[in-house]
Amino acid sequence: MNKVWVKDKERVDDLLTHDLQIIQSDEVFSFSMDAVLLARFASIPKSGKVLDLCTGNGVIPILLSTRTKAVIEGIEIQPRVADMARRSVDMNRLGDQVMIREGDLRELVKETGHGAYDAITVNPPYMPLTSGDLKMNMHQAIARHEIHCSLEEVIAASMRLLRTGGKISMVHKPQRLGEIVTLLRQYRLEPKVIRFVHPRAGAEANMVLIEALRDGKPDVRILPPLIVYGDDGVYCQELMDIYYGPKEGRT
Amino acid sequence: MNKVWVKDKERVDDLLTHDLQIIQSDEVFSFSMDAVLLARFASIPKSGKVLDLCTGNGVIPILLSTRTKAVIEGIEIQPRVADMARRSVDMNRLGDQVMIREGDLRELVKETGHGAYDAITVNPPYMPLTSGDLKMNMHQAIARHEIHCSLEEVIAASMRLLRTGGKISMVHKPQRLGEIVTLLRQYRLEPKVIRFVHPRAGAEANMVLIEALRDGKPDVRILPPLIVYGDDGVYCQELMDIYYGPKEGRT
Repeated sequence: MNKVWVKDKERVDDLLTHDLQIIQSDEVFSFSMDAVLLARFASIPKSGKVLDLCTGNGVIPILLSTRTKAVIEGIEIQPRVADMARRSVDMNRLGDQVMIREGDLRELVKETGHGAYDAITVNPPYMPLTSGDLKMNMHQAIARHEIHCSLEEVIAASMRLLRTGGKISMVHKPQRLGEIVTLLRQYRLEPKVIRFVHPRAGAEANMVLIEALRDGKPDVRILPPLIVYGDDGVYCQELMDIYYGPKEGRT
Repeated sequence: MNKVWVKDKERVDDLLTHDLQIIQSDEVFSFSMDAVLLARFASIPKSGKVLDLCTGNGVIPILLSTRTKAVIEGIEIQPRVADMARRSVDMNRLGDQVMIREGDLRELVKETGHGAYDAITVNPPYMPLTSGDLKMNMHQAIARHEIHCSLEEVIAASMRLLRTGGKISMVHKPQRLGEIVTLLRQYRLEPKVIRFVHPRAGAEANMVLIEALRDGKPDVRILPPLIVYGDDGVYCQELMDIYYGPKEGRT
């Protein structure tokens, strides 16, 4: 039956929770643990409007649908990837709650107006345009490098799209924490909650989850570290809970 | 014999390493774990000149003397506290290596010139002048509240006093991480290494250690979390190692 939804060189993977599934493709887009952790970490209102920037195959909106009754939009600049996301939404019968926009996040505010969203999530490209090699194909390069938008453009757009008191939740690389904090604050998004993800207890962090409040006051909480693997090399219990988590999450 | 060094309402405490001792006073100044962690965390050159701002009773210069042959200066604005620090230096026979200045860190550059130091350490007052109550006595209030200098003034002075490529290491409260990162970068001190201290594995951080490089490029490492107490309620091994640590530390 899934074959109806799937195109050439695509596959359907289980999201391991709530019987959700997602269309993936190694050549076009497949999600990583980062997206799953962000979908659990993010503060999401019970109702209202939520926006996921750089949504890719829509994994974050689809996962967020288990935590809220809010309308969830995702925006993706690549037509091929946005099409995958739309089919995943339909496949999961989430068309009443989740809408995928194909377009440029820098232009979205012209359509929606300022302050249209209560919360934003974003798993942006991690690498500056100048760094790393670009041997991968164009779909992958756009997802990983700041080709279509820079970190500053993502943050500037979020500031305009979020209402006062709205929250943005981002996953990124710790290497860029200095720039992230500075840019968020420059655009009146005050960092409030940060969690670092360490592959093992004794290892440096390889991921950062950060939540910022539109027009908030300076006051940061650093949550307990999230350790991915135990000494035995298997996922820690908390990681298992995040993947297979209960319907009621942190909201 | 120590009685020679000690004044009214003071006591001599062991620093638990290298037979070092320090003059303390609950009414004037006594150090906390924060200073010990900073003295171990800080990147210190093997030679050259190191400066400890807001040095209090000199605990950080005295501990740093076990890790380097560099000349170590400490600056303290309160005459009564600077006097304690000087006597602690003499008591430990460190007068050839450690010098305590009494004065205002904002004015120091006029005396030393720009870029006079290879490394700076600082355990500044944690609380803004407006926050908290000021029921404590004046000595304690000055050590804990931004009465004589603000966070920005500490960072601005550090920028002027550090040579290009020099490092500043600071201990502070995670609540203020947003301001700290923004101010460091504003004054060309690029955050490079950050370590969070958590009282227990599942608790939020209550301390942050941060190292920044004068005129460095953006690239942050988040070290493994430092957990103070084990599940059994006693200090973790790493804390014990820091307190009773080997002569050769991280340099």
